[in-house]
Amino acid sequence: MSTGQIICVGLGPGDPDLMSVKADRLLRQSRHVAYFRKRGHPGKARQLVNGLLHAQVTEYPMEYPLTTEIPHDDPRYVAQLSDFYRDWQQRLTDLAREQDVLVLCEGDPFFYGSFMHLYIRLRQAGQVPVHVLPGIPGMVGCWHATGVPMTWGDDVMTVLPATLPDERLRAHVAGAEALVFMKVGRHLPRIRAVLQAAGKLDQSWLVINGTMADEQVMPLREAPERCPYFAIVIVHGQGRRPANDLQAAGSLVALDL
Amino acid sequence: MSTGQIICVGLGPGDPDLMSVKADRLLRQSRHVAYFRKRGHPGKARQLVNGLLHAQVTEYPMEYPLTTEIPHDDPRYVAQLSDFYRDWQQRLTDLAREQDVLVLCEGDPFFYGSFMHLYIRLRQAGQVPVHVLPGIPGMVGCWHATGVPMTWGDDVMTVLPATLPDERLRAHVAGAEALVFMKVGRHLPRIRAVLQAAGKLDQSWLVINGTMADEQVMPLREAPERCPYFAIVIVHGQGRRPANDLQAAGSLVALDL
Ligand SMILES: C[S@@+](CC[C@H](N)C(=O)[O-])C[C@H]1O[C@@H](n2cnc3c(N)ncnc32)[C@H](O)[C@@H]1O
Ligand SMILES: C[S@@+](CC[C@H](N)C(=O)[O-])C[C@H]1O[C@@H](n2cnc3c(N)ncnc32)[C@H](O)[C@@H]1O
Repeated sequence: MSTGQIICVGLGPGDPDLMSVKADRLLRQSRHVAYFRKRGHPGKARQLVNGLLHAQVTEYPMEYPLTTEIPHDDPRYVAQLSDFYRDWQQRLTDLAREQDVLVLCEGDPFFYGSFMHLYIRLRQAGQVPVHVLPGIPGMVGCWHATGVPMTWGDDVMTVLPATLPDERLRAHVAGAEALVFMKVGRHLPRIRAVLQAAGKLDQSWLVINGTMADEQVMPLREAPERCPYFAIVIVHGQGRRPANDLQAAGSLVALDL
Repeated sequence: MSTGQIICVGLGPGDPDLMSVKADRLLRQSRHVAYFRKRGHPGKARQLVNGLLHAQVTEYPMEYPLTTEIPHDDPRYVAQLSDFYRDWQQRLTDLAREQDVLVLCEGDPFFYGSFMHLYIRLRQAGQVPVHVLPGIPGMVGCWHATGVPMTWGDDVMTVLPATLPDERLRAHVAGAEALVFMKVGRHLPRIRAVLQAAGKLDQSWLVINGTMADEQVMPLREAPERCPYFAIVIVHGQGRRPANDLQAAGSLVALDL
């Protein structure tokens, strides 16, 4: 029987003040901390906790097997990734037999988070207890960075991974109200084209590293051609509101950031 | 010139351990705390901070003018609500000229939150500084309550206010992947019918008071006819994942909560 457990903590969008009380407490106490990263990169989740970890912590960087992107349906990709997750499932399980292990995740772990692949395997195996703590998703930090409310009244909100093909993006954007594009990075030009075609470019915002020290917020039409992976495109809902609010919101978006 | 400011804090889904470090700090320090409530009700946001407020706090319950629901397009409703917001805009502004005022909000304030109506007016008037702090939205707490990851890979997530008419719900549910219904309450039977017609009833979950002490989680097909306002219906995304994960996720949903 194990005496430890695996706890994955959602770190929120970036600002350490926006971590949950519980995440903050666990970070400061934990002696074993794991996180995903690409080879040669510090790892975003690890960067977010700079200065918060215990002095005697042991760190476990879980390095993705691939540095360049190969197609996700390539069998080699699936096989490599599968081995990688199986390997870390075993290593975290072995560690957790004796002590608690914290796994770091940006935003909320159950919202497009890599840990979900380990979680499913760990739960399936049932050898050690696994817990996951919610965090503020990156998109929430990003809409706050714009200073404009996101959804009102009967607004529908659609979240789109920018990795979807153009025609699927177009279909979803057509009838949409509030919109969020995740995983923007190299897909920025395609997102811009889709929003322009739908007549929504002038209501669109780009937020890079939302709530972090190097946050950047700009109207999408003023954005450069390229942007980093940690970026979200937002179209705010307009919703049902008293006429006054609608006017006020209009000038808010127009006049000030 | 004012010496105080108005700060609206997102309290997260309910569990005080899931509040942000900053929300927690502000709650314990603040001497002036306002929150919305219906006449005759304690107010959900106020309930969430029981035991956390400063001993010398002054509370400002902002009571909605209406106890029964009248149609939202009724001019009387719009007028009453408009007066109510204008009144509290003035009162919070007067208070903030001399000291900080905290406004409580469940979940994230910019995500279907009532404070947005005050925010727009306060920003428009520009008489006192206004800040809004993100919180974990209720839906995030609710999908964690199910123990099942929400969105994977290329999953699209759609958030629907249950107040929408049937035909609009139906249109959105048809092509949807991950789904969230907000403001469930008396709309539960309609949601169930729409999900059943779309063949999604067996993948649907109902979460009442997610992460609170009286949380209830159940498959939607086992839910009672009626449910409280603080309830969310969730359909998890199935996403692109290694074959193993898909199987594992299937059994996770089937076997365990
Ligand atoms: C693999 S997903 C993980 C999402 C994360 N679990 C969450 O809840 O936000 C990575 C994507 O999240 C988005 N993202 C997360 N946090 C962000 C932030 N603070 N600023 C900008 N984008 C962010 C970016 O679009 C990035 O490509
Ligand atoms: C006016 S909206 C406010 C949403 C809030 N600002 C948020 O970010 O979740 C009220 C609705 O939020 C949902 N909700 C919020 N927190 C919840 C929780 N902990 N459990 C269940 N439902 C919740 C319910 O659907 C409720 O009808």
